[in-house]
Amino acid sequence: MFAKHHNLDPAEIAQADKRHVLHPWSDLKTMHTEDPLVMAEAKGIHISDAEGNRYIDGIGGMWCVQVGYGREELIETMAEQARRLCYYTPFGAMANVPAAQLAQALAARAPGDLNTVSFATSGSGAVDSAIRFAHFYFNCLDQPSKRQVIVRMDSYHGSTYLTASMNGKRRDWSQFDYARELVHFLPSVNAFRRPKGQSLEDFANEKVADLEAMILELGPENVACFVAEPIQASGGVIVPPEMYLPRCLEICRKYDVLYISDEVVTAFGRLGHIFASKDVFGITPDIITCAKGLTSGYIPMGATIYSDRLIKAISGENAVDHPYFTNGFTYSGHPVAAAVALKNLEILEGDGILEQVRDTGPYFQAGLQKLRELPIVGDVRGMGLMACVECVVRKIGAEPGEADMAVAARVDAHAQERGLILRPFESLCILSPPLIVTKEDIDRIISILRDSLIATQNDLIAEGIWSPPARG
Amino acid sequence: MFAKHHNLDPAEIAQADKRHVLHPWSDLKTMHTEDPLVMAEAKGIHISDAEGNRYIDGIGGMWCVQVGYGREELIETMAEQARRLCYYTPFGAMANVPAAQLAQALAARAPGDLNTVSFATSGSGAVDSAIRFAHFYFNCLDQPSKRQVIVRMDSYHGSTYLTASMNGKRRDWSQFDYARELVHFLPSVNAFRRPKGQSLEDFANEKVADLEAMILELGPENVACFVAEPIQASGGVIVPPEMYLPRCLEICRKYDVLYISDEVVTAFGRLGHIFASKDVFGITPDIITCAKGLTSGYIPMGATIYSDRLIKAISGENAVDHPYFTNGFTYSGHPVAAAVALKNLEILEGDGILEQVRDTGPYFQAGLQKLRELPIVGDVRGMGLMACVECVVRKIGAEPGEADMAVAARVDAHAQERGLILRPFESLCILSPPLIVTKEDIDRIISILRDSLIATQNDLIAEGIWSPPARG
Repeated sequence: MFAKHHNLDPAEIAQADKRHVLHPWSDLKTMHTEDPLVMAEAKGIHISDAEGNRYIDGIGGMWCVQVGYGREELIETMAEQARRLCYYTPFGAMANVPAAQLAQALAARAPGDLNTVSFATSGSGAVDSAIRFAHFYFNCLDQPSKRQVIVRMDSYHGSTYLTASMNGKRRDWSQFDYARELVHFLPSVNAFRRPKGQSLEDFANEKVADLEAMILELGPENVACFVAEPIQASGGVIVPPEMYLPRCLEICRKYDVLYISDEVVTAFGRLGHIFASKDVFGITPDIITCAKGLTSGYIPMGATIYSDRLIKAISGENAVDHPYFTNGFTYSGHPVAAAVALKNLEILEGDGILEQVRDTGPYFQAGLQKLRELPIVGDVRGMGLMACVECVVRKIGAEPGEADMAVAARVDAHAQERGLILRPFESLCILSPPLIVTKEDIDRIISILRDSLIATQNDLIAEGIWSPPARG
Repeated sequence: MFAKHHNLDPAEIAQADKRHVLHPWSDLKTMHTEDPLVMAEAKGIHISDAEGNRYIDGIGGMWCVQVGYGREELIETMAEQARRLCYYTPFGAMANVPAAQLAQALAARAPGDLNTVSFATSGSGAVDSAIRFAHFYFNCLDQPSKRQVIVRMDSYHGSTYLTASMNGKRRDWSQFDYARELVHFLPSVNAFRRPKGQSLEDFANEKVADLEAMILELGPENVACFVAEPIQASGGVIVPPEMYLPRCLEICRKYDVLYISDEVVTAFGRLGHIFASKDVFGITPDIITCAKGLTSGYIPMGATIYSDRLIKAISGENAVDHPYFTNGFTYSGHPVAAAVALKNLEILEGDGILEQVRDTGPYFQAGLQKLRELPIVGDVRGMGLMACVECVVRKIGAEPGEADMAVAARVDAHAQERGLILRPFESLCILSPPLIVTKEDIDRIISILRDSLIATQNDLIAEGIWSPPARG
């Protein structure tokens, strides 16, 4: 048990956290009073809290611990690089070895002519830089009115002022201010919530038409970019309709709108490929943003990868006066982070993890689909090693009901008791295990999830909140 | 030599960097053609490039490598924590041991009632979160019009869309878009550039009055916060006039404007104290932002520290409906970063580095002041281990002349030949060495800088660009 080993009092740690940490997505009503779950140790796909309870980490840290916890090669690489060169400024024409090598490695794996990389320290930073680049690009081309950003409901793109303004999860809109004047939301592409009776094909046509209509409404001369996660991750693992993404790309090209593919979640193996845009969805966007799996979460890093076409149009002989790209961070291209990312790529590719995910992913999805037989389960969706089980307590309709909202937290509590961490959001139970899960691990995860869903059903019935619908 | 040891071809690395990396503050005109300086190894205060040239790192990485390069205790801590728990999500009520301990440690060292910490992965993220918090705070208090941000010319606050909009270095304003509607600039507090004949006292009074006038012009009901680096760092190490900061704080209090002290550069020993706001400048701000020295640059991390008074007003029984603090990052409170930051604090305090800086800082400043005898030197300013030598080629006036602009790059080139890295910006030679520099190291730094300034003078005379003014 960690706490015993390390002479720590778990209660003291919990107290320090409660008193001093303002967590992301805190509920300020229960701040300083709600006891945190203090995580202390992890190895492979397992994590232990400070009290010594052990869990399967069904969420891979948070969509990021691709190669599993405590991987010795990554730790040694980290220490070696820190010993050699722990930091140096990336500003101007100052370079370091691992960052240069990593940029080259990412360019080699990114689709099409996406060959230039700027680094950040988070997915938020990577997306924020992508939007800033889009503004810079069109200003250089003397099209300063092209600055509006189109996103979709149920999206998640970050937590800076600008990127938080691009989040389409309605429950996330709280007491903050947002750059509403810059960002425009298309309706969700969640087919599960489409109007009753609408065919999938009609739904897809409608969603593609939504994009074109919005570009025309705003005026193409005012739209800088369309930003889309290939699969909307924390919004509920929303897999877009077939051909939706390629058709959106076509529309963007038609109106000279930059297509930014936000691969913070989908890159680095979650769908069995280093990047998913082309290999899974058949699109070569103008810009790809990534983070999370880039370092398997061992050290903060994000990256933005740009098309040669864009760079060429604004650099060298095409550069404008005062052509300084005054964007980037102290820790952009951090040598330790870059070295870890390079080793992480080597593991993903060299250890056959990508191939493994192409095998375990479909197995995972097929196993989860069987949960549809539980009355509380409204939808099961996903791809590769990302999935969502959507619970429906009242009735299946276009909008989730009030009672649905708290269901996932109940399922999560039951799962924790049974040794599994999942990610509850409203009525959604989200899973994104480390990519090294075996089929046996997957069986165990699904078995615990099934038991937790059944236990939740029983609680709801016992509490008189719910009665299962008759099935015919 | 690094490249030989590691079987790397320095030219190949440089080529990879040129081709694939979009650096912060790149000049897009010379992109893909300008050869980078590739850094490869560092130890203590020395850094070597891939060709094997060795330099004193006069800029501490970039204001951050406080305890020096290759410090074994930090590297071991990093590896140990990565082995134990390399990552876990900080969202909601999920905690980890080092982040909880670090928040407690920062609260214990921050002034007044600044006891609550949110983590980010950069200074930009820390400042972006601080402004977002200010918006959140006033929205919770039903004062939604209080959202404007006041900053000062020559400031630097970050590189997200919002924080880049707060940068007052005119040369940084390039082809990007900025949130001009939110941010308002006060004139610079650089006393060296004050009108001829104005006393320092009058200058200080005027600068304080500028703040009050701007609050009144915008309307106090529209102003959320005033954001100020205690010493404006990359803007030119501008030390504010005596009592300027306490008087600004008074004015902020008078109009219920939050005072955000941006200590990304000044915290963690640069001025001989963990935080400078109170210990050096006598102010207890509402929020402190920090990064850089927090981990000595070994791993990306930033933090924002909030006053209890603010937190109390919007949490617990004072919380509004839907009180979710939907701000923060995947890598907020990263356990490896937090463990490194804790060990870094232990080194700064336990090894007597703070005391050392209180001794070497004045020695450094006094030595630099002697450079004023060189005709090219217009001003020498600084405090602790941050300093700036401002060159003046044409004449000393309110605004630097065109010819001044390129001088620092010339000095930098001469210094590199002599084994010293400094940070050139227009006419400014900026220094911020690791905090472990000894007096002998300082002598060496100043000696190289003197030689480089003299060499630059000689070049300028030889090229007919400049003739030194007669001295009387």
